[in-house]
Amino acid sequence: MRLLGLIGLVGVMLTGQVAPAAAEDGYDLWLRYERAGDSDLSAYRGQVERVVVEGEGATLDAIRAELETGLAGLLGRDIRVSRRGGGDNMLVVGTPETSPIIARLDLDGLDAGPESYVIRTMSDRGRAMTVVAGSDEVGALYGTFALLQMMSAGEDIAELDIAESPAVDRRLLNHWDNLDRYVERGYAGQSLWDWHTLPGYINQRYMDYARANASIGINGTSLTNVNADAQVLTPQYLEKAAALADVFRPYGIRVYLTARFSAPMEIGGLETADPLDEDVRAWWATKTDEIYEYIPDFGGFLVKANSEGQPGPQDYDRTHAEGANMLADAVAPHDGIVMWRAFVYTADEDVDRAREAYDEFVPLDGEFRDNVMVQVKNGPIDFQPREPISPLFGATEETPLMLELQITKEYLGFATHLAYLAPMWEEVLDTDTYVNGEGSTVASVIDGSLDDYELTGMAGVANTGTDRNWSGSHFDQANWYAFGRLAWDPTLSSEEIARQWAAMTFSEDDAFLGAVTDMMMGSREAVVDYMTPLGLTHLMATGHHYGPGPWVDDLGRPDWNPTYYHRADEEGIGFDRTQSGSNAVEQYAEPLREKYSDPETTPENLLLWFHHLPWDYELDNGDTLWEGLVAHYSRGVEKVEAMQETWESLAAHVDERRHDEVSQFLAIQADEARWWRNASLAYFMDVSGRDLPAGYDAPPESLDYYKSLNFPSAPGNGR
Amino acid sequence: MRLLGLIGLVGVMLTGQVAPAAAEDGYDLWLRYERAGDSDLSAYRGQVERVVVEGEGATLDAIRAELETGLAGLLGRDIRVSRRGGGDNMLVVGTPETSPIIARLDLDGLDAGPESYVIRTMSDRGRAMTVVAGSDEVGALYGTFALLQMMSAGEDIAELDIAESPAVDRRLLNHWDNLDRYVERGYAGQSLWDWHTLPGYINQRYMDYARANASIGINGTSLTNVNADAQVLTPQYLEKAAALADVFRPYGIRVYLTARFSAPMEIGGLETADPLDEDVRAWWATKTDEIYEYIPDFGGFLVKANSEGQPGPQDYDRTHAEGANMLADAVAPHDGIVMWRAFVYTADEDVDRAREAYDEFVPLDGEFRDNVMVQVKNGPIDFQPREPISPLFGATEETPLMLELQITKEYLGFATHLAYLAPMWEEVLDTDTYVNGEGSTVASVIDGSLDDYELTGMAGVANTGTDRNWSGSHFDQANWYAFGRLAWDPTLSSEEIARQWAAMTFSEDDAFLGAVTDMMMGSREAVVDYMTPLGLTHLMATGHHYGPGPWVDDLGRPDWNPTYYHRADEEGIGFDRTQSGSNAVEQYAEPLREKYSDPETTPENLLLWFHHLPWDYELDNGDTLWEGLVAHYSRGVEKVEAMQETWESLAAHVDERRHDEVSQFLAIQADEARWWRNASLAYFMDVSGRDLPAGYDAPPESLDYYKSLNFPSAPGNGR
Repeated sequence: MRLLGLIGLVGVMLTGQVAPAAAEDGYDLWLRYERAGDSDLSAYRGQVERVVVEGEGATLDAIRAELETGLAGLLGRDIRVSRRGGGDNMLVVGTPETSPIIARLDLDGLDAGPESYVIRTMSDRGRAMTVVAGSDEVGALYGTFALLQMMSAGEDIAELDIAESPAVDRRLLNHWDNLDRYVERGYAGQSLWDWHTLPGYINQRYMDYARANASIGINGTSLTNVNADAQVLTPQYLEKAAALADVFRPYGIRVYLTARFSAPMEIGGLETADPLDEDVRAWWATKTDEIYEYIPDFGGFLVKANSEGQPGPQDYDRTHAEGANMLADAVAPHDGIVMWRAFVYTADEDVDRAREAYDEFVPLDGEFRDNVMVQVKNGPIDFQPREPISPLFGATEETPLMLELQITKEYLGFATHLAYLAPMWEEVLDTDTYVNGEGSTVASVIDGSLDDYELTGMAGVANTGTDRNWSGSHFDQANWYAFGRLAWDPTLSSEEIARQWAAMTFSEDDAFLGAVTDMMMGSREAVVDYMTPLGLTHLMATGHHYGPGPWVDDLGRPDWNPTYYHRADEEGIGFDRTQSGSNAVEQYAEPLREKYSDPETTPENLLLWFHHLPWDYELDNGDTLWEGLVAHYSRGVEKVEAMQETWESLAAHVDERRHDEVSQFLAIQADEARWWRNASLAYFMDVSGRDLPAGYDAPPESLDYYKSLNFPSAPGNGR
Repeated sequence: MRLLGLIGLVGVMLTGQVAPAAAEDGYDLWLRYERAGDSDLSAYRGQVERVVVEGEGATLDAIRAELETGLAGLLGRDIRVSRRGGGDNMLVVGTPETSPIIARLDLDGLDAGPESYVIRTMSDRGRAMTVVAGSDEVGALYGTFALLQMMSAGEDIAELDIAESPAVDRRLLNHWDNLDRYVERGYAGQSLWDWHTLPGYINQRYMDYARANASIGINGTSLTNVNADAQVLTPQYLEKAAALADVFRPYGIRVYLTARFSAPMEIGGLETADPLDEDVRAWWATKTDEIYEYIPDFGGFLVKANSEGQPGPQDYDRTHAEGANMLADAVAPHDGIVMWRAFVYTADEDVDRAREAYDEFVPLDGEFRDNVMVQVKNGPIDFQPREPISPLFGATEETPLMLELQITKEYLGFATHLAYLAPMWEEVLDTDTYVNGEGSTVASVIDGSLDDYELTGMAGVANTGTDRNWSGSHFDQANWYAFGRLAWDPTLSSEEIARQWAAMTFSEDDAFLGAVTDMMMGSREAVVDYMTPLGLTHLMATGHHYGPGPWVDDLGRPDWNPTYYHRADEEGIGFDRTQSGSNAVEQYAEPLREKYSDPETTPENLLLWFHHLPWDYELDNGDTLWEGLVAHYSRGVEKVEAMQETWESLAAHVDERRHDEVSQFLAIQADEARWWRNASLAYFMDVSGRDLPAGYDAPPESLDYYKSLNFPSAPGNGR
């Protein structure tokens, strides 16, 4: 803890003058544009002696502003972007339509569709030139960010021949933000959207949010909670949403809203919301026309219906397809889309919840309009530290599926736990569904290549808020960053993303990057170990999901209880989803089905997801299941302690403030990892009647103590 | 609206290098320490060539850190504070106990009690010296801030002979902050206290909050909402509160907590909270001992009891005194105090609510323990734009009264309206109660001089939150600042405070300061004009109090309705509080009682507070009451439009970002002032059956339109 305020001091400069400089507080994200290291600086300066961005328009203005800001920082010299000119060592940015220079170059690679770009170093009329050319202006903006980020990461830009286009069309953040600025499952302050002062007051953060998203290729934002409030569809709020859309538009970001299915009753004065009722259909059509008057490029609706108490078409004995199609018809004249969430589970408590989305939606395949996507969480349950993939992926040949990932860490320790999520997402994207034979990866479903989807999309539940560092912790910025990168290209390596992010965010030093990348890459598995090892799931405390609650067995529905998921007793532990149990395995294509049906071929990290096994079941390494469980829980703690050691060893590479803040969070994480390990083992010892194997420390408190802890004000709960 | 992100650019420096500098975003408050203007710089540099702060300790460290930060900024040169030394042109800071130099000087003026300081320029052994000497270390810290602020405001410090000591002992912020970070009546983001990450994570803002408060003499903070949650008294939260207390202690700030009266039942397992029950008394004594183990300098309890549904002693047929004394006995062994709020009103709906606090508390005078203060809002109702003083002031000879002001603008337009509140507070403090003859001002009650109170105090309901600029708007920082200054010295001029604040916050330019001070000084009266002119009160919409609701007449209690307060009908308007009415005037001492009893001698700005009058009643200027009402409402709008013009004319003196943000808020204020004026006049035209006088624009919308507006998600409501 330091006493010095924000107004820190930089060292004495050449003239003996000092200027106050803001401490690094994380606000600038990966767009810090720190001056390039000595080894790169002269090369960069030599290559970029002048910058030309021709043409007029808001996106071109954004490109110019970003180049002036970014290059001034990176090159440590004042940069003026010209609107015309030439000469040696020029950087030119634009499109063939906006830039006569680029039009004259007649570059190939610009026919890859919207939002694409090329970056080339070349000689033009005997003069060295770096060209960033977009297929459209947003593509040119993306290329600009790509070049600035290469420089920020200290990469060599002397010879570039890059052509990029997005693999996925709709790359959205989903904000679970209420109109009173409360963020459901948010751990980073309030909603970024200050609805009360909109549209009159345009906060600087709205611009910086747009810059950050554009820098990683995110092109859509759903502003409001999926547990939706119909008020957002009233003129009072549409005017506010339109003001945000105006800010985001130059950055290529379209606004989407969540549609509360019962809105025709709540704000429309109708007596039903039946999707086949003509008045209801007319109301939505009129309402949609009104929305497009406010927001001409409105993206469409995101809908959570008949899920966790939300209204929906089933209230009127209509199907999800009938509900989605009504909204799809309303937005179709404006080229809007509907993203209909598959996160549903029926009132029938006897059905294995892991089966339900598949059972509900596969029979509807072929019944959705062309402008509907079904948005599916990565796993069959709910954003757990590890789940198998949802069996829906690949199962709907005619219904485009959109992948929903959760960037905010509802189940992985909130903002205080360092858990880099990209390895989890990579694991999901790389998983082979086998539906069209080997190579039918989830990534190939999502990018549309497997089933020739016309629409493709990926959504991330945002971890942004009003906290100074945006994401509630410095390392959670990496999850925002990685989501954007993977939505652009689902085949990217999570390790490479981590390395680039860390280089831009902290330091380009190789030793630092090696250590911090290793730490990040192992961090999610540490959480799995100390929370839910070996395929266990949903053991978190009730409501807020803060801390362990494996003993909870008294909630309103069986499938809300941790005991429902782990099914531990004196004999064994795990959920039998094979033929002898819920037979959820049947929803996977062969050979995945067969693999998951046999504990011997099931990956050990999913063992108890699919199988109920005796405590003495033998694991791969010869340990019993009980011994393995204890080892995993204990190893999770050790991994966090090792992360603390790693981070302390890197102090020289990170500014004091951010280093200190991360250290404090790691200490909290280590405390909470121990709490998870001890409370979980105390409970499983009690249930199994088993003692700890030799060499393991007993939990320091009684099971009753752990059960007695309660946290009524833990953040992010749904109120 | 500008596209450039936070990473702005400063101009090219001498070497041609640029360094990124943070834009002015208000985070630094009045502690910006901007480099002194040319006319002062060389004088300051000459006077402060070296700085010596002898001694060891946390408060001395804070002094050294502030001097290094502040002088580096002000003098534009690196400053190292030495722990010993001498020489010409030295600034020395400390106390006779911590500094041998100061001890040797044997200064007079250091016997004025705790927290006092002197600042002197003098010659010592033939060398020029500036001395800041405290009666204790916190006094030395206050003196340090005073000197830095004189320099920040561009004042001449060449010849100083200043002796300062606080007129009021307890100078507190009251945070109405819930444990889930929701701030009741907060318009500046979430609570500063991130309970979830405490005590493990110490946010930099906690330190900067302490610095800001110490810089204006605030020495206490009540962390939690008066609508209290007993959870804060559990060990889980006491550990967190203790971590905050540890941060605040070096800055002379003590932590207080709100005590929920029913806590013995909710967290203590008792079946009663009866203050005369021995188990209850023992529980509080034990709980208090526990609190002092966590926080050795814990200040005491703030209590809202039997008010707006809160539990209290009357639930057990005990008096407020019996309730307060139970808690007072618990904290007495630790020198703690109890601040017991007088904001109560009975279930008897027929009693004029303006009478109730007096009726309840005056009979209890003499029954409270010595370590109890009764905390009274400035007016008899509830923080309205204008109220007469509470008649309690001066009426309790044996019971020290603490003044409660509301810094957050619940009833004055939230954060978006520019309303400088110090003129209102000055009006209150300067009001003569006449209880001991002329000169018995409210200030003399509060500073204890009138009745020789042993305890004195002033509380301000905080307007701070997680918004980057702390207060939700740049100009609301002035209200925080002014509260601290007035709590230190209730006789200060609000105009002088405004000028000093503006000089430190924006610019020392005389023309700027003249214009902006005028604008600030008139701003509260503008709000009175467009919301509640001529003594009207409580006309705001229900619950959130956002916007006009003079028509509301259907709430659960008569005295929650605006119609209860204005009583307008076809004949006239106003609340008769004379003998012919509720006779609330009898609670004031003569000659105030007589003055308020006659409309001819009642100040026109309180006319309808005390009198029900016909629409044709003649005002001082010859207008009818109706004409005057219309004129005031219209003038309020004109005043805001004039503020807009003033502010635009000052653009050259203020950095672009802050100027633009204030301009946007003023535009919102102008819109909302028009809304207030038009909705109110539409309503009063309807009720009175009168047309607007010639020359006034008719409201552009129908009364039904204004009534139809609703804002379910307006901020600050109690949920």
